Amino acid sequence: MKAVRLESIGEIFVREVEKPVPGPDDLLVRVEACGICGTDRHLLHGEFPSKPPLTLGHEFCGIVEAMGSGVTGFSLGARITGDPNISCGRCPQCLAGRVNLCHNLKAIGIARDGGFADYVIVPQKQAFEIPLTLDPVHGAFCEPLACCLHGVDMASIKAGSSVVVLGGGVIGLLTVQLARLAGATTVILSTRQQSRRALAEEIGATASVDPSAGDVIEAIAGPNGLVPGGVDVVLECAGVSETVQQSLRLAKSGGTVVILGVLPQGQKVEIEPFDILFRELRVLGSFINPFTHRRAADLVASGAIEIDKLISRRISLDEAPDVISAPAAAGEVKVLVIPGKA
Amino acid sequence: MKAVRLESIGEIFVREVEKPVPGPDDLLVRVEACGICGTDRHLLHGEFPSKPPLTLGHEFCGIVEAMGSGVTGFSLGARITGDPNISCGRCPQCLAGRVNLCHNLKAIGIARDGGFADYVIVPQKQAFEIPLTLDPVHGAFCEPLACCLHGVDMASIKAGSSVVVLGGGVIGLLTVQLARLAGATTVILSTRQQSRRALAEEIGATASVDPSAGDVIEAIAGPNGLVPGGVDVVLECAGVSETVQQSLRLAKSGGTVVILGVLPQGQKVEIEPFDILFRELRVLGSFINPFTHRRAADLVASGAIEIDKLISRRISLDEAPDVISAPAAAGEVKVLVIPGKA
Amino acid sequence: MKAVRLESIGEIFVREVEKPVPGPDDLLVRVEACGICGTDRHLLHGEFPSKPPLTLGHEFCGIVEAMGSGVTGFSLGARITGDPNISCGRCPQCLAGRVNLCHNLKAIGIARDGGFADYVIVPQKQAFEIPLTLDPVHGAFCEPLACCLHGVDMASIKAGSSVVVLGGGVIGLLTVQLARLAGATTVILSTRQQSRRALAEEIGATASVDPSAGDVIEAIAGPNGLVPGGVDVVLECAGVSETVQQSLRLAKSGGTVVILGVLPQGQKVEIEPFDILFRELRVLGSFINPFTHRRAADLVASGAIEIDKLISRRISLDEAPDVISAPAAAGEVKVLVIPGKA
Amino acid sequence: MKAVRLESIGEIFVREVEKPVPGPDDLLVRVEACGICGTDRHLLHGEFPSKPPLTLGHEFCGIVEAMGSGVTGFSLGARITGDPNISCGRCPQCLAGRVNLCHNLKAIGIARDGGFADYVIVPQKQAFEIPLTLDPVHGAFCEPLACCLHGVDMASIKAGSSVVVLGGGVIGLLTVQLARLAGATTVILSTRQQSRRALAEEIGATASVDPSAGDVIEAIAGPNGLVPGGVDVVLECAGVSETVQQSLRLAKSGGTVVILGVLPQGQKVEIEPFDILFRELRVLGSFINPFTHRRAADLVASGAIEIDKLISRRISLDEAPDVISAPAAAGEVKVLVIPGKA
Ligand SMILES: NC(=O)c1ccc[n+]([C@@H]2O[C@H](COP(=O)([O-])OP(=O)(O)OC[C@H]3O[C@@H](n4cnc5c(N)ncnc54)[C@H](OP(=O)(O)O)[C@@H]3O)[C@@H](O)[C@H]2O)c1
Ligand SMILES: NC(=O)c1ccc[n+]([C@@H]2O[C@H](COP(=O)([O-])OP(=O)(O)OC[C@H]3O[C@@H](n4cnc5c(N)ncnc54)[C@H](OP(=O)(O)O)[C@@H]3O)[C@@H](O)[C@H]2O)c1
Ligand SMILES: NC(=O)c1ccc[n+]([C@@H]2O[C@H](COP(=O)([O-])OP(=O)(O)OC[C@H]3O[C@@H](n4cnc5c(N)ncnc54)[C@H](OP(=O)(O)O)[C@@H]3O)[C@@H](O)[C@H]2O)c1
Ligand SMILES: NC(=O)c1ccc[n+]([C@@H]2O[C@H](COP(=O)([O-])OP(=O)(O)OC[C@H]3O[C@@H](n4cnc5c(N)ncnc54)[C@H](OP(=O)(O)O)[C@@H]3O)[C@@H](O)[C@H]2O)c1
Ligand SMILES: [Zn+2]
Ligand SMILES: [Zn+2]
Ligand SMILES: [Zn+2]
Ligand SMILES: [Zn+2]
Repeated sequence: MKAVRLESIGEIFVREVEKPVPGPDDLLVRVEACGICGTDRHLLHGEFPSKPPLTLGHEFCGIVEAMGSGVTGFSLGARITGDPNISCGRCPQCLAGRVNLCHNLKAIGIARDGGFADYVIVPQKQAFEIPLTLDPVHGAFCEPLACCLHGVDMASIKAGSSVVVLGGGVIGLLTVQLARLAGATTVILSTRQQSRRALAEEIGATASVDPSAGDVIEAIAGPNGLVPGGVDVVLECAGVSETVQQSLRLAKSGGTVVILGVLPQGQKVEIEPFDILFRELRVLGSFINPFTHRRAADLVASGAIEIDKLISRRISLDEAPDVISAPAAAGEVKVLVIPGKA
Repeated sequence: MKAVRLESIGEIFVREVEKPVPGPDDLLVRVEACGICGTDRHLLHGEFPSKPPLTLGHEFCGIVEAMGSGVTGFSLGARITGDPNISCGRCPQCLAGRVNLCHNLKAIGIARDGGFADYVIVPQKQAFEIPLTLDPVHGAFCEPLACCLHGVDMASIKAGSSVVVLGGGVIGLLTVQLARLAGATTVILSTRQQSRRALAEEIGATASVDPSAGDVIEAIAGPNGLVPGGVDVVLECAGVSETVQQSLRLAKSGGTVVILGVLPQGQKVEIEPFDILFRELRVLGSFINPFTHRRAADLVASGAIEIDKLISRRISLDEAPDVISAPAAAGEVKVLVIPGKA
Repeated sequence: MKAVRLESIGEIFVREVEKPVPGPDDLLVRVEACGICGTDRHLLHGEFPSKPPLTLGHEFCGIVEAMGSGVTGFSLGARITGDPNISCGRCPQCLAGRVNLCHNLKAIGIARDGGFADYVIVPQKQAFEIPLTLDPVHGAFCEPLACCLHGVDMASIKAGSSVVVLGGGVIGLLTVQLARLAGATTVILSTRQQSRRALAEEIGATASVDPSAGDVIEAIAGPNGLVPGGVDVVLECAGVSETVQQSLRLAKSGGTVVILGVLPQGQKVEIEPFDILFRELRVLGSFINPFTHRRAADLVASGAIEIDKLISRRISLDEAPDVISAPAAAGEVKVLVIPGKA
Repeated sequence: MKAVRLESIGEIFVREVEKPVPGPDDLLVRVEACGICGTDRHLLHGEFPSKPPLTLGHEFCGIVEAMGSGVTGFSLGARITGDPNISCGRCPQCLAGRVNLCHNLKAIGIARDGGFADYVIVPQKQAFEIPLTLDPVHGAFCEPLACCLHGVDMASIKAGSSVVVLGGGVIGLLTVQLARLAGATTVILSTRQQSRRALAEEIGATASVDPSAGDVIEAIAGPNGLVPGGVDVVLECAGVSETVQQSLRLAKSGGTVVILGVLPQGQKVEIEPFDILFRELRVLGSFINPFTHRRAADLVASGAIEIDKLISRRISLDEAPDVISAPAAAGEVKVLVIPGKA
């Protein structure tokens, strides 16, 4: 079968590899779609640790084609979405119920072969059934949605809350939708690209601002801003210094800041602790998807989340190495790899 | 009567002033004791906003000597401790139950005459009765204890938690005790002065470290540290850059950092957002004492908190201006002004 | 001016009374609309304690026509909605931030003159401005909505939750809407009247059941029910034994039950503690509107809540005594008294 | 080896059985001590479902004598305590992080062979290392302590809280200690046996009441009671109707009731919903030990919990069937089976 292989840092190719054989607790899944994520680019460039050679791809869905002897509760032909993050169940964090902080976390597509391939092996406890009636590519959004859902859960949005989302990539655009769903009646997206701001307003943002056009803090939380004094909740989804700094200023006193965006280890950001203390902020990291994949899959299946408008392109396995090697194209939100595509 | 007056920034004197007259909802309280706090020094030097001329002193207790016509529930001769922080009850924060973030917060001893005087006026809703059998000076600790209690409440300490307290001033030393009381079985204090470390261990800390003797992070959270991997909860009570930075490193993955220490507005601290995101920290500001003064007063009254060992000196009103004008003396934890003292 | 007076238990009349004069902290409000609530009927029949003679009416809005000397932040001609529940600010519950549990709670329209009158006096801290552009009668829904909001806040609904609401009166129909707003993607209403079930589905319920048509527990949580195994959250809004019992069976393991409906003191209901223990339920009382009136008013002002369809009739002050004396008419949801109406 | 076998409902004998062989992920543990629990009696009498024939005993500790090939992180000769409750990791509850509500929960000593035997098999994820320096029998208390810890966690006890514990069996006596540890400064135990009340006061209760001597509600929450108006938290640890009813009356307005005691399925208790609504109680079920076994084991190891005084007798395997067959003897708290005992 074909697979997109990270052979070593900087080296990515489509290769013919052996079709994998499921172990006793595994599903063999024919991949229908697998999303390209910024993490794939970080893995390629060695900015995030991985164990090449391996097949990339951690946002996937597909059809069960074979199962190990210990598998129960799945049928051949069923469609599943995979939660790539495999926790060990035995480290202190797992034993405390903090599975996303597992000391031995292993992710499909990062530490073992992933979904940019005709087939992928999925341990049964990582597989979540979704309806066959669903547009197959939608299943590839369960993983990023589950991450956003965790962040939105932490934010404690209430009916009537005001929210700012910083960064209009796929994470920001899913978060905008979840914030609305969770009860926010004001949701403002800050992102530079006009097309994304327009899209956000189509899918639920009540307003948007362009951070390159002026002072975001003034535009949102200033005396003549959209929400003078700031908002109840800020969700940082851009992963840059500037937005981390903004987040502490955009939250109102007593507000909550959730950091979803990833800054590289070692990168420093200057903050004013005064903002946190006198304004009694809650600043919360939100890391991946603990116990949220099933709910995310159900939300995708229910149609409650607009997904089609987030899909910029569908490409074949053969095209994937070039797309991953290049920076994300302007205007693009999510590119999906469709193994079956010619 | 005598009062310690801040006449303008930098100008502090003992003056003879009119004995105040209680309004309809006020108590006239003969001050038994009033603690000197770092904030008094900040007020003197104009580092914290105030409205001179005014009498300083916001950590006080005393005896009810007269009452306005609208006062109910208090008797002449009763002992009360005052919550200095008067919220307005009508701003958006008050109406949302976040009274410590009141837009119109006015504090006794900061925005109106305080407790470094023979008498102080206390609105009845700011007064909390405590037993006459109590050592009178203990009542002056209710205010700082109420602030610490708020911080400890936010920290969600559980039975068996591990805690680090950074800074061994009176706030740190009360926090050490509350952390133990709240269930922590490991409580480590980091502070430079040996006398405070020894005192902390006497009153509940299970260990202490000297930040000037080496790398605190290594000593606590390092592989051979006291709690390898870090602790469940860090309470920052020093109010300096260094300890804010440490706090994010001393908490273990999934841990909580509560910032109680005050850094001046505008002072920046470099942090690594990576620490917050990948280690999924909760970083929480804890500002003053919302709804905790009654509980603090009850704890003081119950004897559950060691107070005598935190009292370094008892001085007269006449001595107060000099003591407030000088930096805190080495070794000193809390100095109490005793108006009745000759 | 005219007012609907409860003169003693069972005796209600329209009377000409003096137009009240605002005290220093009061607003004089010309009533635009005031809703009739089941509590008004309980007060009439002495099933709920009150202090007649007094003017009933606790769900009101109107226009500020005069103000006491101490009032700030309001203008003549502004529209306000009143929070009737006046807490004392000084009892142990108030001092612990649990203002709805105030030992000295006094409600406008229950313990002092209310809104079934041309004018009502509102202490400034109980008044919340809403836009003049709003349909005036909508302001009369802020009070019940604020109660529902408190219940929905307690329920911790998350994006994608499933919810059952028991009872399709105005409380149930507002709760259905808030549950959707708060993120529930499944909201099932159980109520006997077909017209209410139809209305609920129009305004947000995803399904409804008729409790008189069969076993509600089977229909919802049974193996072939709408949500086999039960729902995440049950909101009891009927206030009868049967629904309290159902609530513990309709919640799934680990689910939450919020009791909003009022059963008379002394009325017993048989439950099985096994349901709570083995299924680890959270059963929560939700009493009135602590710190939620501002948010409710903002939601009403935003148009996020469908109100017009909940209004069954608008009547004059003269008609009010008869309507209050009769049981609620079948099909009726909310009747509004419009003092200006001929 | 010897084992205490439940052969069928009502039939319990000591038998010679094959020493078990660990599977790849299992530890073979030589049992040092295994506590007898009320559940063992329920299993014997068929009041709780089990799958005889099987070896009973779910509160055990012992020494690792052999390990499967897949085991890591344990050494031969180490001492472990077992968490008997094995969740499946794949059902909806497990996938939502509610492992104690697992649809396929299997417990060691209930659904598979347990600890009343010379040896027991423990899957590695159920085994928690404790120090060899510990008194071996203390490890047998980790399981009940982990259940109590879960209940106490749910109760949200704060520094200075008041608590009532109903029922002075081992669960109640451990809960008294945890409540103190968690910050309660008032802990009142209600239990009938004088010896238990005395013991409770020795190990942390600040007072106790005898429910057979008069009205517990009056004695505790009445105007002249120990805590007029009721306590912050009630922990029901008796598992009888009477205490469930009392629990809703002993909690003060805004208080929390945690139900730990087990009433049989089908047993009804009459409550007044009015108590829950108007007094805005939180009533919470607490079922077994989700994610608390490690913390419980650490608490036992730390010596923070008094255990020796809870041990009434140490018996041999041969004596166990008789002891389990008889009702708990008066005055007895915990009986330990010591397989090595002659
Ligand atoms: N916490 C988790 O579990 C988790 C899971 C997945 C991803 N992530 C992280 O979440 C972040 C977002 O992921 P993504 O897939 O959506 O990536 P993305 O496409 O890179 O989205 C980030 C977007 O932020 C916008 N941006 C950049 N600078 C900005 C600024 N100064 N102000 C406002 N917006 C700015 C950019 O859009 P414009 O060009 O329109 O400004 C950019 O496309 C990444 O850091 C990713 O690593 C975290
Ligand atoms: N959040 C609130 O509501 C609230 C209320 C009251 C006070 N506060 C603030 O809390 C802080 C503490 O108050 P306090 O009255 O206890 O003041 P303090 O006496 O100034 O205590 C702070 C102590 O921190 C120690 N310290 C300084 N640098 C340190 C370092 N690098 N590492 C470890 N310890 C260090 C010092 O003791 P050593 O000389 O022993 O190192 C110092 O005495 C202040 O910032 C105060 O403004 C906040
Ligand atoms: N907690 C609070 O703060 C708060 C605030 C306001 C009101 N309340 C209480 O909330 C409850 C509802 O108030 P409301 O104004 O909406 O009163 P309501 O009009 O009396 O609504 C209750 C509705 O429940 C339905 N019902 C009766 N028996 C039922 C059953 N067995 N199953 C399902 N539905 C049943 C009835 O509608 P059908 O005829 O269609 O069945 C009835 O109209 C009352 O008890 C009220 O006192 C509480
Ligand atoms: N939730 C969980 O995860 C969990 C875990 C383990 C056990 N449990 C349950 O917790 C309960 C207690 O367990 P245990 O091992 O401690 O059992 P236990 O020894 O039976 O303890 C219960 C004690 O409650 C006392 N009691 C009985 N009636 C009372 C009353 N009216 N008022 C006050 N006290 C009364 C009795 O002591 P006196 O004779 O002194 O009155 C009795 O010994 C049981 O129901 C057990 O099934 C639950
Ligand atoms: Zn792990
Ligand atoms: Zn205010
Ligand atoms: Zn009150
Ligand atoms: Zn399970």
